[in-house]
Amino acid sequence: MGKMLYEGKAKQIFETEKDDEVIVYYKDDATAFNGGKKGTIEDKGVLNNRITEALFTYLSENGIKTHYIKTLSDREQLVKKVSIIPLEVIVRNLAAGSMAKRLGIKEGTPLKTTIFEICLKDDSLGDPMINDTHAVGIGAATFEELREIYAMTDKINDLLKAYFDKIGIILVDFKLEFGKDKDGNILLADEISPDTCRFWDKVTLEKLDKDRFRRDLGNVKGAYEEIMGRMKKI
Amino acid sequence: MGKMLYEGKAKQIFETEKDDEVIVYYKDDATAFNGGKKGTIEDKGVLNNRITEALFTYLSENGIKTHYIKTLSDREQLVKKVSIIPLEVIVRNLAAGSMAKRLGIKEGTPLKTTIFEICLKDDSLGDPMINDTHAVGIGAATFEELREIYAMTDKINDLLKAYFDKIGIILVDFKLEFGKDKDGNILLADEISPDTCRFWDKVTLEKLDKDRFRRDLGNVKGAYEEIMGRMKKI
Ligand SMILES: Nc1ncnc2c1ncn2[C@@H]1O[C@H](COP(=O)(O)OP(=O)(O)O)[C@@H](O)[C@H]1O
Ligand SMILES: Nc1ncnc2c1ncn2[C@@H]1O[C@H](COP(=O)(O)OP(=O)(O)O)[C@@H](O)[C@H]1O
Ligand SMILES: [Mg+2]
Ligand SMILES: [Mg+2]
Repeated sequence: MGKMLYEGKAKQIFETEKDDEVIVYYKDDATAFNGGKKGTIEDKGVLNNRITEALFTYLSENGIKTHYIKTLSDREQLVKKVSIIPLEVIVRNLAAGSMAKRLGIKEGTPLKTTIFEICLKDDSLGDPMINDTHAVGIGAATFEELREIYAMTDKINDLLKAYFDKIGIILVDFKLEFGKDKDGNILLADEISPDTCRFWDKVTLEKLDKDRFRRDLGNVKGAYEEIMGRMKKI
Repeated sequence: MGKMLYEGKAKQIFETEKDDEVIVYYKDDATAFNGGKKGTIEDKGVLNNRITEALFTYLSENGIKTHYIKTLSDREQLVKKVSIIPLEVIVRNLAAGSMAKRLGIKEGTPLKTTIFEICLKDDSLGDPMINDTHAVGIGAATFEELREIYAMTDKINDLLKAYFDKIGIILVDFKLEFGKDKDGNILLADEISPDTCRFWDKVTLEKLDKDRFRRDLGNVKGAYEEIMGRMKKI
């Protein structure tokens, strides 16, 4: 394997022989609250690699441009190298987590419209929430890039909601990252997994995602396996 | 005077004989950091009443619909009663204050575009910053109302920047509130004063606004008087 280019909280990025491709290696490390809580979840790397593979493949088949090329092993994916747009793009179909708390509303409250949030991807600032004019004002993105990102995000939300609904799961909220390839195309990058989504069982409302780790609810690995298991039925 | 309907941090609202008009009484009380710091600034109520009168008159003459009817005394204005849209609308022409801090940029940094921020007006939540989809999602406003509010805000910014430029002042940022009158028209409400704007002298960059109180810079009253004095020259 080539040189490690970046080590993040959940993944490592390695160079390949090709300038425009990198390998993503999925670790078992788990963090929450901007690094304030640390741990490991056994086999999380394997599960998130496989879950991301399946979801990126599904999205590609439905017209979304993504960085995904192919899976190399249980923990490794080959992806197009992109320059990451320094934004976390969050979609909220129901109120939960930090947003529910900040706005004083109960988790699970339905919303009059889908909420799209962006945060500046900067660990040293604690990934502060911003709006479009901040992003453009400080040079993190252009209005045109934001328009394209929101259009892609909206379509991804529709596709993922339909996908998870089929396997009895409510997609409560999720986080996306986008990047630009060498030709300037905006691609969906990073991962989509129980680390980056809130999944609730449609019937029991049981949490099947990283909130089990964040909130010490137990059976964290089992929740990730449950997601993978149901996805295999599609 | 009629019954007091509301006592806020800087003003009191009284009823009148007419259902659709109220009297605003400007106090000398000053607060900062969401009520964490309290004090009084001698004659602030008189100065802010007169400054708001002059600015709302100027904006009305230039096509902005406002709640302002007439000045009744040194501390009192008659205004149209509105139902306040629970948003603080903030315009930032240069980075300063909480935004500069949150985004890790130096005060006074120019921006690639004018920044428009909205905060949910809710003291118990600390007036959290939100975006348009939050505002609509939780029912604080509709997308149509927001479009109208931003269009008015943009025009107000252009008018105020030009006004203050003539008297040697940079309009760094400011906060507006809007409300709906009984016919559903959106009007500019509340006040525009050194309590709600950041004003910097164009040459010396001296602060001529409530930051002198927030940051204990001294001569707070003198700064408000300096603004009023320069405005009288227009
Ligand atoms: N296709 C890609 N090309 C380059 N970098 C990527 C790509 N996809 C994701 N990344 C970046 O690689 C890192 C993945 O590691 P992760 O552990 O998630 O990091 P972090 O702790 O920053 O969230 C992230 O910084 C992510 O933005
Ligand atoms: N035309 C109006 N009709 C009704 N309420 C108004 C009008 N203009 C301003 N207000 C409200 O009156 C209050 C003014 O008092 P203030 O001391 O500024 O209050 P606060 O502490 O809430 O900022 C604010 O809540 C403001 O929204
Ligand atoms: Mg990450
Ligand atoms: Mg006020």
